[in-house]
Amino acid sequence: VACDGGQQSVIASLTASQASTLVVRRGSVLSAAQSDLAEVIGLRPALVAISTTVDRYFGSELRSALGRSRCRIVVIPTGEKRKSLETVTSIVKVAIDMELPRNGLMVGIGGGITLDMVGLAASLFRRGIAHVRIGTTLVGQVDAAIGLKCGVNAGGSKNSVGAFHPAELVLTDGRFLGTLELDHMRDGLAEIVKLAVASDLNLYENLSENAQLLLEPTTRDCAEARAIVDAAIAGMMRELGTNPYEAELCRRVDFGHTVSGAWEVATRYRLTHGQAVALDVALFSTVASFLGTLDPAALSGILSLFERLGIRTWHPVMNDTATLFGGLRSAEAHRGQRINLPLPDGVGNTWFLTDRADLPDKLLIRACALLEAHSRNQEVQLHVSKG
Amino acid sequence: VACDGGQQSVIASLTASQASTLVVRRGSVLSAAQSDLAEVIGLRPALVAISTTVDRYFGSELRSALGRSRCRIVVIPTGEKRKSLETVTSIVKVAIDMELPRNGLMVGIGGGITLDMVGLAASLFRRGIAHVRIGTTLVGQVDAAIGLKCGVNAGGSKNSVGAFHPAELVLTDGRFLGTLELDHMRDGLAEIVKLAVASDLNLYENLSENAQLLLEPTTRDCAEARAIVDAAIAGMMRELGTNPYEAELCRRVDFGHTVSGAWEVATRYRLTHGQAVALDVALFSTVASFLGTLDPAALSGILSLFERLGIRTWHPVMNDTATLFGGLRSAEAHRGQRINLPLPDGVGNTWFLTDRADLPDKLLIRACALLEAHSRNQEVQLHVSKG
Repeated sequence: VACDGGQQSVIASLTASQASTLVVRRGSVLSAAQSDLAEVIGLRPALVAISTTVDRYFGSELRSALGRSRCRIVVIPTGEKRKSLETVTSIVKVAIDMELPRNGLMVGIGGGITLDMVGLAASLFRRGIAHVRIGTTLVGQVDAAIGLKCGVNAGGSKNSVGAFHPAELVLTDGRFLGTLELDHMRDGLAEIVKLAVASDLNLYENLSENAQLLLEPTTRDCAEARAIVDAAIAGMMRELGTNPYEAELCRRVDFGHTVSGAWEVATRYRLTHGQAVALDVALFSTVASFLGTLDPAALSGILSLFERLGIRTWHPVMNDTATLFGGLRSAEAHRGQRINLPLPDGVGNTWFLTDRADLPDKLLIRACALLEAHSRNQEVQLHVSKG
Repeated sequence: VACDGGQQSVIASLTASQASTLVVRRGSVLSAAQSDLAEVIGLRPALVAISTTVDRYFGSELRSALGRSRCRIVVIPTGEKRKSLETVTSIVKVAIDMELPRNGLMVGIGGGITLDMVGLAASLFRRGIAHVRIGTTLVGQVDAAIGLKCGVNAGGSKNSVGAFHPAELVLTDGRFLGTLELDHMRDGLAEIVKLAVASDLNLYENLSENAQLLLEPTTRDCAEARAIVDAAIAGMMRELGTNPYEAELCRRVDFGHTVSGAWEVATRYRLTHGQAVALDVALFSTVASFLGTLDPAALSGILSLFERLGIRTWHPVMNDTATLFGGLRSAEAHRGQRINLPLPDGVGNTWFLTDRADLPDKLLIRACALLEAHSRNQEVQLHVSKG
């Protein structure tokens, strides 16, 4: 009665599909009189997970804003080294302990790391419950909160474990930006520059003119600054629009995200995500200029925009060729065994280099060397102008 | 520049959707000449995770069947206590270590616990890669391999963490059933009885006639036995068909799964999943007879079918009212704050009791007492007939 080898018969078959709508809104989270978050939670049981930083700066305001809702606020640790399945499990255990029902809600309030972990917890608990993402850093607002992705680091590999889990709502509140350290704003600006170079010339021009407003604490939530944040969010959504689950592995928003993860890991996360993205944008813009799809003036413009924002375009880790080539190999594995490398085609457009074989090692090393020389030259100029 | 409380504006919005087709096939996994699994893997890099039991009985056959494919076979621990995020993480770490690409494949070969963990690992690694499920137990073939669910235990709560992740293919091979212990076959039969009572009178009648063939090792893969397995799989698929992601929380296949998880946890998994499901079916069939939707002869038929298969319909844990009522409370939380309890409406049909308030505690206690008395009476009869 054993089966015959090679014969297969279909017992049954069905088509499964899942649909959801992503919405990003501006709103006020902390208003004691009328918090948009309290309104969204309504009468639902909710677990609100906030970062230690949010707790420090906004904890008491938040608690009074949410005073009337049936939510439990938990403070979770952050940092790339705590961005792990263990921390996600600790969030899930709170949900189990409070008997959070299937129609309950998780809310994440914090930077990208917090949102990534709360999204994954919401995705895993009871195989997926609703969640709301509230980014309190610029990276959180324009990047981590947008889209379906969540994830954690595992096995010494960045974001290697995660899920696509669309949020019920993304709430953006510029007030959170006021307390951010300058370097955190720079991290977010690196992501915005990435998006602008890859897909949005208008945003790039707007950045060149007004990005400074996002650095200065008192103007981070002014109309012009909001316009940049909103354009970045809209641009990110546009890129996701036709490809939310990444069925297509050529993605313009992968620009800046090719070797950056490997550099973060190699520097044991002393390079922040935003800093690594800026290096990656600088490297592959230089590669594009070598390949003739970005003219030298445009490359120079990108590097000088980073410089004006105080964002470095070179770091010693770029001389570590093992990390560089290892990162490219990981990117290939992640993009379905092709490098599918987004490269600027002028500012605001992207083309894809499909095969790793078409990207000579020497060209990459030469691009890193150019950025190193450029960076030393900048320091010399700085020294001269200071002198 | 602070936001006004209560004002929200939509920045952007998109509709995300995901589609996939579930297919279950019969095939030969172990054929050295032409393994259907080797054919499915083809040239793709693959991680094949098998249970220690599969390794013991079929390890060498499997290795020679897969000899030509580029797969790595790893043996993973099983048991409800090892069904954890830690074990899933260990699978993911192998995938990272072998640089399994996004278009690679995970394959799970084992019982329900193995399939649940490999499915979750495939769902989490790179936010979801393809996987193939091959159930080697009867529970695995008719239940865990079917559908989109995967999951692990966490926080002292059964399957509290997981995902919906449709398999690329489910492969069913009756040969694996030959080495199964009798109690494992009984676990699978409990799930099939559950499905038959809830939704399929034909299957119920077929079971009454032929289920013994699945107990006897030499006939477990005969045509009549296969017909039962295939009908159970087709029935499960039919139930999932309109509701694969459980948007609707009244599910006929939740029959047998209301308090069973709480009993498993309370007995520290000394009660297997199948044994607990049988108790749950017995309890709520009795409840239905008290409520007048299952006539006494039908209830008696269900209990006697279980008895003929050597499956118990009572256990001392049923006298633990704290676990009983706690389990019902958990079921409510899991089903969106309503009990949404499937109850037999005759054999083969189901109705739903929506509100816990309509299910008096006393009635539940009386149903447990009836099953205890029935069970003692059976033992007496057995003793008399043996004497």
